[in-house]
Amino acid sequence: MENLSTLTGKYGDEGDQLIYKILNSGDFFSKVDAEQKKEISSKALLPLISERALRYDLTVPFARYVVMNQNALTMPFKRYQIQPVWRADRPQKGRYREFYQCDVDLVGSASLVNEADLIQIYHRAFNELGIKEFTIRINNRKLLMALGELTSKPQDFSTLVIILDKLDKIGVEGVTKELLEKGFNEKDIETLAPFFELKGNHQEKIEILKAQLGSTEIGKKGLEELDKLFSLLELMPEVLGHCSIDILLARGLNYYTGTIMEVICPQAKGSLGGGGRYDDLTGNFGLKGITGVGISFGADRIYDLMKVLELFPNQPISTQVLVCNFFPEAEKRAFELAIQIRELGISTELYPDQNKLPKQLKYADSKNIPFVVLIGEEEYSRDQYSVKNMVETKQERFSRLDLFEYLKRELINKGE
Amino acid sequence: MENLSTLTGKYGDEGDQLIYKILNSGDFFSKVDAEQKKEISSKALLPLISERALRYDLTVPFARYVVMNQNALTMPFKRYQIQPVWRADRPQKGRYREFYQCDVDLVGSASLVNEADLIQIYHRAFNELGIKEFTIRINNRKLLMALGELTSKPQDFSTLVIILDKLDKIGVEGVTKELLEKGFNEKDIETLAPFFELKGNHQEKIEILKAQLGSTEIGKKGLEELDKLFSLLELMPEVLGHCSIDILLARGLNYYTGTIMEVICPQAKGSLGGGGRYDDLTGNFGLKGITGVGISFGADRIYDLMKVLELFPNQPISTQVLVCNFFPEAEKRAFELAIQIRELGISTELYPDQNKLPKQLKYADSKNIPFVVLIGEEEYSRDQYSVKNMVETKQERFSRLDLFEYLKRELINKGE
Repeated sequence: MENLSTLTGKYGDEGDQLIYKILNSGDFFSKVDAEQKKEISSKALLPLISERALRYDLTVPFARYVVMNQNALTMPFKRYQIQPVWRADRPQKGRYREFYQCDVDLVGSASLVNEADLIQIYHRAFNELGIKEFTIRINNRKLLMALGELTSKPQDFSTLVIILDKLDKIGVEGVTKELLEKGFNEKDIETLAPFFELKGNHQEKIEILKAQLGSTEIGKKGLEELDKLFSLLELMPEVLGHCSIDILLARGLNYYTGTIMEVICPQAKGSLGGGGRYDDLTGNFGLKGITGVGISFGADRIYDLMKVLELFPNQPISTQVLVCNFFPEAEKRAFELAIQIRELGISTELYPDQNKLPKQLKYADSKNIPFVVLIGEEEYSRDQYSVKNMVETKQERFSRLDLFEYLKRELINKGE
Repeated sequence: MENLSTLTGKYGDEGDQLIYKILNSGDFFSKVDAEQKKEISSKALLPLISERALRYDLTVPFARYVVMNQNALTMPFKRYQIQPVWRADRPQKGRYREFYQCDVDLVGSASLVNEADLIQIYHRAFNELGIKEFTIRINNRKLLMALGELTSKPQDFSTLVIILDKLDKIGVEGVTKELLEKGFNEKDIETLAPFFELKGNHQEKIEILKAQLGSTEIGKKGLEELDKLFSLLELMPEVLGHCSIDILLARGLNYYTGTIMEVICPQAKGSLGGGGRYDDLTGNFGLKGITGVGISFGADRIYDLMKVLELFPNQPISTQVLVCNFFPEAEKRAFELAIQIRELGISTELYPDQNKLPKQLKYADSKNIPFVVLIGEEEYSRDQYSVKNMVETKQERFSRLDLFEYLKRELINKGE
């Protein structure tokens, strides 16, 4: 939760619409002027009845935090944060009203070493999750600006970028059509065409870009940054192999000023994460000149992708042993046994009710519990324990100590 | 986030006030009848402009979930859940507007084995957190009801329980005074007096309670349950040692029907957790006769207590090695070195900017980074590395391989 005023105006008009606002507590409507009540618009009423809102992302709250704690923080200040955020949007596949963001940000250092560190974090995280085919698309806002300067309408930079960003969705033809509709001319199309399908490895791309954009001041600066970043990435060939320069990548147009990043995967719809450099993150809150760079992981989309790629264990086994429960006298013994098996480091449940065997076995089956311990009347009278291996559907009977040895063998030492 | 209608009416009138309501998106006020606008009260306006609300606890959303998924769930169904909840309350020490609850619940089994399992979870969790002096107070709602039946005003059960629950705060004298004010008589005080200071171990207390409350049907049932629960706890002496029967414990009066539990610690204000048995958890959502039992951990209060008890490591070390950064040529080597030290399993940062040494050392110092690697011009030209031990304030110079050996010795093998 944040103050509504902290969030308003930071995400553009559409963003403002998508912020969930919280109604003031108590008799909220009585504070509105009686004469106003009838005529007032929703927009004018809003600040009178709502002072708080749900987080829309983690970046703006982070900026607010940095400004509030500027004297206590050691710069450069690094932090990660995993929390839910909310968007008042129509929910659909890959787009949620409530979802978790995982952000890593750093403020107070302009060095591209930070970008290289963050790209390493992306690489390591996706690698450890078992996602193999991801690409980290990398661009620099300054190169987009240089591109704009080459056209006949450099003042329409935002329009240009918004159209270019759609290339993935509407193709070269669609982009050309939209550019012409928005008043760019045939010569602009000709100028931009080579950038639509830039080929080659990063060195080749940088060379082409130098030839095309190196003549402008802003283009030169952008290329220096890109060059420097890739010279660091070259020190990590495995990481570099997942990085690709994408001169048209334009996400987060509102506040990125340097490096722009996005992670995609052919099997996933939408990006799995994104980030970039913002030279004036905290300016909105009155602290000028603090540069920052950050990345975000889209936890829910990553989760969805991992389900599609079957990267989660097929049958998650939480409980390894179920101790059955048949008659009152045996319950205490079963309870004690369950405790002792747990002490071996084996997740164990005692079936809490004295239901018939098939019901208890059905419970074990539906929860994929691989071993079931039975204490029937005969077992009870002899202090013995039958164990049913639910996978191999075989059953054996043991003394208590032998049971422990058997379970340790099957459940703890088996992997060794 | 939940539908507001799911939460309303589940926490009493005061609870309804404390629920944070979310304003409908878009032109929310236009949907209110124009004629109504001027005269309508906040209370009548609320359902017209708000359909959603923030979770007040995890129990009601859990009940809603169980009902919605009743055909897919295997009973008894167990789950744990860790999520933020919100209360529109005045924040104060130990009382937050946004805080994390950790709940463990089970539905679909009336067996007291479940209560014993949950008490084990409490015991193990607090033990592993290093909190030694906790007490799990245990009562049964049926015993409170039996107590009510012994008075002259059994119909005023709620009033009685609310007063008894204050014993900790206002003492015997205060409770006596309030009871008399509310119309209980001197004989009632006499009847209740022995319960104010029930002494002895659990067996002794149960014996006393049997003598006092065993004559009523409901008292008999409650004592059977308490007896059964403690006969299971007796199988775990360490757990039993933290359990105490408290006949006046009455929390969660609104829905508990059997066992009531609460965890307290002398160093903590308020309880660290609580729970109990609710025989009709899902009745509100149209699914009758499903009994459940659950416990909750107050994560933020536990965190506060652990800070007071100094149970967190004094100086949390996240970064173990800082590689300094002095001049452009050495930066690449420093970057590469940082990657290699990380590969040894040692958390490492490269200082991103080429600032003066004191600034970089100050950064290491303020973040409690124990080792700093320096690559000055001399080190750079010889491919050597100076290491400053920030704790012992000594400095040594190594070749790259010797540096790795030194750091492994100091940071990885030292504990062995």
